[in-house]
Amino acid sequence: MADLPISRFPIPDLDELPEDIRQRILAVQEKAGFIPNVFLALAWRPDEFRAFFTYHDALMEKETPGLSQAEREMIVVATSARNQCQYCVIAHGAILRIRAKSPTIADQLATNYRKADISERQKIMLDYALKVSRQAEEIGDADHQRLRDSGFDEGDIWDIGAISAFFGLSNRLVNMSSMRTNEEFYLMGRVPR
Amino acid sequence: MADLPISRFPIPDLDELPEDIRQRILAVQEKAGFIPNVFLALAWRPDEFRAFFTYHDALMEKETPGLSQAEREMIVVATSARNQCQYCVIAHGAILRIRAKSPTIADQLATNYRKADISERQKIMLDYALKVSRQAEEIGDADHQRLRDSGFDEGDIWDIGAISAFFGLSNRLVNMSSMRTNEEFYLMGRVPR
Amino acid sequence: MADLPISRFPIPDLDELPEDIRQRILAVQEKAGFIPNVFLALAWRPDEFRAFFTYHDALMEKETPGLSQAEREMIVVATSARNQCQYCVIAHGAILRIRAKSPTIADQLATNYRKADISERQKIMLDYALKVSRQAEEIGDADHQRLRDSGFDEGDIWDIGAISAFFGLSNRLVNMSSMRTNEEFYLMGRVPR
Amino acid sequence: MADLPISRFPIPDLDELPEDIRQRILAVQEKAGFIPNVFLALAWRPDEFRAFFTYHDALMEKETPGLSQAEREMIVVATSARNQCQYCVIAHGAILRIRAKSPTIADQLATNYRKADISERQKIMLDYALKVSRQAEEIGDADHQRLRDSGFDEGDIWDIGAISAFFGLSNRLVNMSSMRTNEEFYLMGRVPR
Amino acid sequence: MADLPISRFPIPDLDELPEDIRQRILAVQEKAGFIPNVFLALAWRPDEFRAFFTYHDALMEKETPGLSQAEREMIVVATSARNQCQYCVIAHGAILRIRAKSPTIADQLATNYRKADISERQKIMLDYALKVSRQAEEIGDADHQRLRDSGFDEGDIWDIGAISAFFGLSNRLVNMSSMRTNEEFYLMGRVPR
Amino acid sequence: MADLPISRFPIPDLDELPEDIRQRILAVQEKAGFIPNVFLALAWRPDEFRAFFTYHDALMEKETPGLSQAEREMIVVATSARNQCQYCVIAHGAILRIRAKSPTIADQLATNYRKADISERQKIMLDYALKVSRQAEEIGDADHQRLRDSGFDEGDIWDIGAISAFFGLSNRLVNMSSMRTNEEFYLMGRVPR
Repeated sequence: MADLPISRFPIPDLDELPEDIRQRILAVQEKAGFIPNVFLALAWRPDEFRAFFTYHDALMEKETPGLSQAEREMIVVATSARNQCQYCVIAHGAILRIRAKSPTIADQLATNYRKADISERQKIMLDYALKVSRQAEEIGDADHQRLRDSGFDEGDIWDIGAISAFFGLSNRLVNMSSMRTNEEFYLMGRVPR
Repeated sequence: MADLPISRFPIPDLDELPEDIRQRILAVQEKAGFIPNVFLALAWRPDEFRAFFTYHDALMEKETPGLSQAEREMIVVATSARNQCQYCVIAHGAILRIRAKSPTIADQLATNYRKADISERQKIMLDYALKVSRQAEEIGDADHQRLRDSGFDEGDIWDIGAISAFFGLSNRLVNMSSMRTNEEFYLMGRVPR
Repeated sequence: MADLPISRFPIPDLDELPEDIRQRILAVQEKAGFIPNVFLALAWRPDEFRAFFTYHDALMEKETPGLSQAEREMIVVATSARNQCQYCVIAHGAILRIRAKSPTIADQLATNYRKADISERQKIMLDYALKVSRQAEEIGDADHQRLRDSGFDEGDIWDIGAISAFFGLSNRLVNMSSMRTNEEFYLMGRVPR
Repeated sequence: MADLPISRFPIPDLDELPEDIRQRILAVQEKAGFIPNVFLALAWRPDEFRAFFTYHDALMEKETPGLSQAEREMIVVATSARNQCQYCVIAHGAILRIRAKSPTIADQLATNYRKADISERQKIMLDYALKVSRQAEEIGDADHQRLRDSGFDEGDIWDIGAISAFFGLSNRLVNMSSMRTNEEFYLMGRVPR
Repeated sequence: MADLPISRFPIPDLDELPEDIRQRILAVQEKAGFIPNVFLALAWRPDEFRAFFTYHDALMEKETPGLSQAEREMIVVATSARNQCQYCVIAHGAILRIRAKSPTIADQLATNYRKADISERQKIMLDYALKVSRQAEEIGDADHQRLRDSGFDEGDIWDIGAISAFFGLSNRLVNMSSMRTNEEFYLMGRVPR
Repeated sequence: MADLPISRFPIPDLDELPEDIRQRILAVQEKAGFIPNVFLALAWRPDEFRAFFTYHDALMEKETPGLSQAEREMIVVATSARNQCQYCVIAHGAILRIRAKSPTIADQLATNYRKADISERQKIMLDYALKVSRQAEEIGDADHQRLRDSGFDEGDIWDIGAISAFFGLSNRLVNMSSMRTNEEFYLMGRVPR
C-alpha cells in the first residue's frame, strides 16, 4: 500500500523543508525507525507545524504526580475514538500500549472507556476529557469538584482538558485531510518482547 | 486478570449445562483453543443461547457471490464500533483480520469506516449497515436502489441489514452485561505466520 | 388495501415452506384468525425464522413474579415507538391492551411512557429498557442498582434488557423491509367485550 | 381513573371562568359530548386561552384546494408524535381518523410517517412539517422549491409550517403540564358506524 | 440593504390591512420609531397576527414578583439562540439590554447562558426554559420541584415554560420565512445615554 | 464587574511572566488599549501560550486572494457560536465587525449563518467550516469538490478547516476555564466613527 496517499493536501520533499523542520523529522525517524505521517502531512505549513508540535510536546512530554504519561495517552485514545479519528486512535493506541505496558488497554479505550480495565479515578478523568471533547459548553463547577475529589489538582485538570481540546484539533485535521496511518503503529506494543 | 468477571450475570459451570450447549461450547474450545466469553455469558439462558447462535450462524457462516465472509465481518466491526461494543469489535476484529487476511483492516473500520482501505462498493455496503444500525426508521427506496446499483442482490441486501440488526442485539447484550473480552482476541490475525 | 406489499423482500407461498414453518404459521392463524405479517415476511429465511421466534418466545412467553407478560409487552411498545417501528408498536400494542386489560395503555406508552398510567416501578423498568435501546454503551452499576432497589431480580433485569435488545433487532428488520402491519391489530383490545 | 389530575397546574371551575370562555367550553361539550382536557387546562389563563384557540382555529378550521382538513391533522399527528406529546397524538389522531375516514392512518403516522399509507405528495408535506418542527434553522430554498414542485402554493406552505410550529407550542405546554388525555379520544373513529 | 426581502412570504401594504392591524402597527411605529419586521411579516394572515400578538403580550407585557420583565426577555434570548433564530435573538436582545439596563447580558445569554452574569436562580429558570424548548418530553416532577425550591410559584413556572414554548413557535416562523431583522435592533441598548 | 474572575485557573502577575510573553502582552495592550483576557488566561502555561498564539497568527494574520481576513473571522464566529463559546463569539465578533466594516454581520453569523447577509460562496465556506467543527468524521470528496467548484484552492480549503479546528480547541479551553470576555469587545465596531 506504499502508493496510497498520506493526505489530500501536498506532502513536501524532506529536502525542501525549512532546516529546523527537516531536522525534527529526521530525529523522529531516527528514534522511531520510520516517519509518522502526521509529520509529513503538516510539513507544508511550517508555522503551523511548529506550533502544533510545540503544543503537543508541552502537554504530552510531561509527567506529573497526578497524571502519568500513560494517562495522558488514555485521554488521547478515548477522545479520538469518539471523534472517529483513525490516525490518532491507532498511533496513540500504540504509544499507550507501550507506556501503560498493556497490550489490551488501547483497544478497550477505543471502543468503550467505561468498560476498560482502568481505575475509577481514571474513568473520572476520562468522563471529564470526553465532556470537554463533546459538550464543553455544559462544563460547570460540579465537574471540576468531582476531579478535585479524586485527587486531581489544578494543573492536572487543565492538562486533562487541554489534551482533550488539543487532540480535538488534531482529530479534525486528520479527518479533513484523510491523513493515513503508518502501518508500523498497528502492531506496536502488542507482542511482549 | 483471570479473576475479572466475565459478566454481571451468572456464569454456569460447564457441567451443569444442557448437553447440547455443553457440546457446542466444547467444540468451539476444541477449534479455537479457548472458550470465547460470549458462549459462557449467554449459557445461563439455554433457549436464548440456542436461538442466538442459530441466528448468528445463519447470517455469518455463509458466503454468497455478492457478500463474502470477510465482508460480513466488516459489517459487524463497523456497526459494533458505532455502538461502542468492546467484545464485538475486538473479537470480530480478530475474525475479520483472519478472513480478510489483513492485519490493519479491523482497526481502520473500528475508528472510521469511511477512511478504511476498502472498495467503494464496500463503503456503500457499510453506509447501509450503519443506517440500519442507527437510523433504520429513515430507510427508503433510495437506499435500496443504491445497493442494487452497486451489484448487491435482494439476498445480499437482507444479509447486510440483518447482520447489522442482529449485532445491534448482540452489542446491547454485551453492554448491559459488561461482557468481558477474552485476551486471546487482541493479537489474533495481527502477526503474519 | 389487500394488494399493498407486505415487505420489500420476497413472500413465499405457504405451500413451499419447510413443514415446521408451515405448521407454525398455520397454528398461529388458527389461534389468531389471521396470519400476522411478520411470519410471512421472515419465512423466506427459514433458519433466521426459527431463531427469531425461538428467541421471541423465550423472552415473551414467560411470566415471572417480577415481570408479568403485560410488563414485557410494555417494554416492546415503549422501545419500538422510540425506534419508530410501525409493525411492533401496533401489533404489540394490541397484545398489550389484551394482556393489561386496558384499552388506553398502549397509546400512552407509544407516545411518552413517562406520562403513562403505570406504576413508578414500571417507569424505572422502562427507563432501563430505553437506555438499553438507545444508549446501551452508557449503562453502568447505578442503572442496575436502581432496578434492584425497585425489586427486580437478576433474571428480571436480564429480561428487561434482552427484550429491549431483541425488539431492537425486530424494529430494524421491520424498517429495512417496510414490513406492513395487519389491519386486524389496530382495533384489537380496544372495545370491551 | 376519574380522579387522576388533568394538569400539574390549576383547573378552574367552569362557573368561575370569564363568560366567553365558559360559553366556548360549553359549546365544545355540546358538540363533542365531553370537554376535551386542553380547554380546562388552559382556562386558568384566559388571555392565553383566547389566543391559543384563535390561533388554532385560524390554521385548522380551514380547507384550501391544496391542503385538506385531514392533511392538516396529519401534520399535527406526525409532528406531535416526534415531540412525544401524548394528548396531541391521541386527541388529534381521533380527529384525523374521522376526517380521513380511515381507522388506521393515525397510528401509522404516529409511529413512522415514512411508512404510512399516504401519497408521495403528503410525505413531502410531512418532511417539511417535521423539518420545521425539529431543524427549522436549516430550512432553505430547496425545501420550499420541493413543496412548490409538488403543487403546494405559498399559502399552503405557510400553513404546513405554521401548523407544525403552533403544535410545537402545544406539545410543549402539554408536556410541561402533564396534561391528561380524555379517554373518549382513544376509540373515536376506529369503529365503522 | 433597504431592498432585501423581509420574508419569503407576502408583505401586504399597510393600507390594505384590516383597520385594527393597521392601527396596531402604526402605534408600534409611533413608539419605536420604526416598524419591527415581525409585524409586517405576519400581517398577511390577520387572524394569526391577532392571536400571535395577543399571546405574546399576555406572556411578556406582565411583571410578577417572581418574574420580572427583564427575566422574561432572558428566556426569549436564551431559548431563541439555541433554536438559531436570528430575529428573536437580535430584537429581543435589544429589549433585554434595555429592560435589564445591561449592554452585555444579551450577548452572553445568546452564546452560553451557563456563563452569563446572572444569578443562580436565573440559571435554574433558564435550565427549565431550555428543557421545555429542547426536551419537553422529559420534564418531570424533579424539574418543577427545583423551580419551587428556588422560589418560583406556580404562575411563574407556567410563564417560564409558556414563554419558552411560545417563542419556539416564533423561532420556527422566523426560520421558515427567513424573516429579516431590522437594523435598528443591533445597536439598541448598547450605548449608555 | 471588575472583580469577577477571568478564569477558573490561575492568572499570573505580568511581572512574573517570561519576558517574551510579558512583551507580547504589553504590545497587545498598547495596540488595543486593554489586555484581552485570553492572553492572561493562557499565560500561566508559557509553552502552551506560545504555541497557541503562533498557531493563531499563522492562520489569522494572513490574507490570500481566496480568503480575506474578514472571511477568516466569519469562520471563527460561526463555528464558535455553534460551540457556545462566549469569549470567541464576542471578541472575534468585534474583530469581524471591524474587518468586514459591518455592524450587523457578527450577530447574524452568531445566530444562524444560513440567514446572514453574506455571499453564496461564503455560505459554502461556512458549511465546510461547520462540518469540520461538528462532524469532521463524515468529510469526504464531495465536500472538497464543492469548495473547489466555488473557487477555493487547496490552501484556502486547508485554512478554512484549520481555522475551524483551531478555534474548536480555543472554544473548549474557554468553556472549561469559564474564561471571561472583556467588556470592551461588546461595543467595538458597532458605532460608525
